[in-house]
Amino acid sequence: MVRYFEDLAEGESHDLGSYTADREELLAFARRYDPQPIHTDPEMAAETMYGGLIASGWHTAGSCMALLVENFLAETATLGSFGLEELRWRAPVYPGDTVRVAVEVIETRASESREDRGYVTNDVVAENEAGEEVLFWRSTNIFITEAGRDQWPRGE
Amino acid sequence: MVRYFEDLAEGESHDLGSYTADREELLAFARRYDPQPIHTDPEMAAETMYGGLIASGWHTAGSCMALLVENFLAETATLGSFGLEELRWRAPVYPGDTVRVAVEVIETRASESREDRGYVTNDVVAENEAGEEVLFWRSTNIFITEAGRDQWPRGE
Repeated sequence: MVRYFEDLAEGESHDLGSYTADREELLAFARRYDPQPIHTDPEMAAETMYGGLIASGWHTAGSCMALLVENFLAETATLGSFGLEELRWRAPVYPGDTVRVAVEVIETRASESREDRGYVTNDVVAENEAGEEVLFWRSTNIFITEAGRDQWPRGE
Repeated sequence: MVRYFEDLAEGESHDLGSYTADREELLAFARRYDPQPIHTDPEMAAETMYGGLIASGWHTAGSCMALLVENFLAETATLGSFGLEELRWRAPVYPGDTVRVAVEVIETRASESREDRGYVTNDVVAENEAGEEVLFWRSTNIFITEAGRDQWPRGE
């Protein structure tokens, strides 16, 4: 069953599960998308304040996004996002860290101009095993309303 | 030569070059980090308002980050970022699109508590070949000052 805009409620929250940061994946991601030495060069990273390789914040964001899609957005009629109000990397993620992710719906707002669209602001928070927050973002996603359900190819 | 905090000036801007969005790379990225059907399922994407597959906004951000690192941050003594004040996906990126990226230094601010750190706020803007802005972000990066140069392993 697909959830349309009207099916989302302010205050609902979901545990999105967790992932473990794989060293080889971190290195491969960073070489292509964020080749700073703290993400790609173990020897150099060991000499910085981090004491060793840390994940690219963009890898952490992408890994959280995967869980958000698989465990929340996949069941909804969403057309993507305008962007993020804020994205915070609060603590480093190290190879081997397990990161747990959750989402909370902060605001739902019907479009003023289109009956087939609504906007949903949600917060994504990720924590490591020590309970430290490693990532936070607030984003606004575009949802299809019941009135627009014929625009959603997976409406059945 | 490495640029420390003091070497960065408010108002400086740099063309960071461009990349072309490769369809296979977009699909591979989206399957792992953003498996929404508008990014992974060409047939379904064709039935949405986008008319076909579009890049994950996280792929666009990562591709811009790669150019930011290679053509700006790599020459600086940076220890990463606290995060983004704002991240906007203003228009879709389609397979085959060429995206040009630029950075501007908006503000430099010495740390009030540590003589070895400074903070630099910069704007990253990306445009497609039609001159449409596809991505914007504002971030704050942590830089090492001249006084902290012995903390930068690549100081020579």
